[in-house]
Amino acid sequence: MGQNGRVPTDADPDQTPVVIGVDVGGTKVVAGVVDAEGRVRRTAHRSTPGRRVDVRMIEDALTEAVQEVADGAPIAGVGVAAAGFVDADGARVRFAPHLPWRGEDVQQRLADRWGTAVLLDNDANCAARAEWAFGAARGTRDALMITLGTGIGGGIVSAGRLIRGRNGMAGEFGHMQVVPGGHPCECGGAGCWEQYCSGNALVRDARARIGLQPTLLEELCDGHADLLTGPMVTEAAEEGDLVAREVFAGIGEWLGVGAANLVAAFDPEVVVVGGGVSAAGDRILEPARQALVRSLVGAAHRDVPPIVRAELGNHAGLVGAALMVADEVGYER
Amino acid sequence: MGQNGRVPTDADPDQTPVVIGVDVGGTKVVAGVVDAEGRVRRTAHRSTPGRRVDVRMIEDALTEAVQEVADGAPIAGVGVAAAGFVDADGARVRFAPHLPWRGEDVQQRLADRWGTAVLLDNDANCAARAEWAFGAARGTRDALMITLGTGIGGGIVSAGRLIRGRNGMAGEFGHMQVVPGGHPCECGGAGCWEQYCSGNALVRDARARIGLQPTLLEELCDGHADLLTGPMVTEAAEEGDLVAREVFAGIGEWLGVGAANLVAAFDPEVVVVGGGVSAAGDRILEPARQALVRSLVGAAHRDVPPIVRAELGNHAGLVGAALMVADEVGYER
Repeated sequence: MGQNGRVPTDADPDQTPVVIGVDVGGTKVVAGVVDAEGRVRRTAHRSTPGRRVDVRMIEDALTEAVQEVADGAPIAGVGVAAAGFVDADGARVRFAPHLPWRGEDVQQRLADRWGTAVLLDNDANCAARAEWAFGAARGTRDALMITLGTGIGGGIVSAGRLIRGRNGMAGEFGHMQVVPGGHPCECGGAGCWEQYCSGNALVRDARARIGLQPTLLEELCDGHADLLTGPMVTEAAEEGDLVAREVFAGIGEWLGVGAANLVAAFDPEVVVVGGGVSAAGDRILEPARQALVRSLVGAAHRDVPPIVRAELGNHAGLVGAALMVADEVGYER
Repeated sequence: MGQNGRVPTDADPDQTPVVIGVDVGGTKVVAGVVDAEGRVRRTAHRSTPGRRVDVRMIEDALTEAVQEVADGAPIAGVGVAAAGFVDADGARVRFAPHLPWRGEDVQQRLADRWGTAVLLDNDANCAARAEWAFGAARGTRDALMITLGTGIGGGIVSAGRLIRGRNGMAGEFGHMQVVPGGHPCECGGAGCWEQYCSGNALVRDARARIGLQPTLLEELCDGHADLLTGPMVTEAAEEGDLVAREVFAGIGEWLGVGAANLVAAFDPEVVVVGGGVSAAGDRILEPARQALVRSLVGAAHRDVPPIVRAELGNHAGLVGAALMVADEVGYER
């Protein structure tokens, strides 16, 4: 255990200290004990009360999940992966649409409360760190991670280091403009990449096709396009529905076009695609690969990076957060 | 002088050794002696024979310029800034539209020929390094450099280090797609950023307006739109011609939109704009700043970086190359 890893007073000092990662999302908190190989040994869950409640309630939920998963062992450090903008110092959540924090010194508050080292970072950064250490980007020096969920998040590893930026806001790929005057976006802009390549885009595109062409989608939502969900589009595609498959292919094509922009800027060795939408696998990744080769400058004069699916699944964020805090406290496992 | 800095046999060992930077462009070679504060003490020029001639001829031109500028002093190292794709090891020019090299080990060939340490890098990377050390980005840790010439080049400094990427091709911002199905580009793609924001775009947009509206541009090119040049557009704008000014403003707006995409990805502290088109100053930078604030995600929750003009002018590339080789040989000035 590193010199910074303090042991909570109620912990059993004879037990091996543990490193814990926590993923704090809009609807739930997941805490996990993470071992030296990035494996999640056990987890604990709490629902999060949303952004309308106060900061204390979410910190209580975090504390309960951490205590449960520690199970009496001393805690060497806790890494917290938050779905929001975390500042470059890793101290504060500057803005998070689905979390109540608005500039509090979260890192210090939790460190004081838990009596251990706490590291705070954006969930996409944490996932990138984990995929780079133990997942689809392991062994590379330059990796691009794109997280496709309801929107797009991301992280960049360059020469073996995570890029954070001045405000800690690097990797906000979802709001890069790809269509001038395109679909309006929640961010206030228009034509943002995530309006064309995300879970939300998938559902919107699928809904727009209902009534235009014969499709299983119509049956699945009982003819009510506004009731159509992402899982229904997945189900239709798996059943062989051509319209649903075209919708996935369209998302994949936009994934490749946007990836080409990022590859032109960063020149990574691999592009790792995670998040819920990545479960579609080659249904989106294969059109993305084709679009990347077609769109990437100098494709004939360079190694075009493979686009691969993330390997660590939903736990990537908490694993990465645990790895980062372990690095910080010099924890030897 | 560092241990790697060998002294050419014809040099005067009593003189102080010099560090030299060389900028190798499509039409000329400029070599300069660069001091510890990044100042260019003296320069030597040679015209370059273009890409149709052999590698030996351009290396002869380089050698002559280096010898002339060294002026008998021992050479601690030479940094070469090349207008092309340089590999991540700094050994080879992988591809350069206006230079004859096609994969030769340029760094080794020149080091052998000159008997001194040689560093090779892309000119935009070198310019970014120089602006970061001594120009408009000095004192920052995260800086974005955009070079507006006939096309767009660029460089990224993240946490005090230049991002190179897997192939050494990071910073190729010009070919990020900003308009689906837009203007065809020399790269084989369409809708690339440099088709909307570059010296070429400026001239194309200005030509398209001749005959549509009364403008001084028509007079300057004697009614032959195809004879219109960039300097004519600049002249018309300086004379107060509204059409020419609108054309510059349009370039500036695209500069801001593209910068917003890059700021979303990297979160830099400053955006430095160099290259020939940057001479238009606030005529393009002010519309760019407005477009950046309008387009940037989370602008209300972050420090929006200033967009400023590069300070080192045409010599930024050779200064940066000299600084990099000085670092590499451990040259103490």
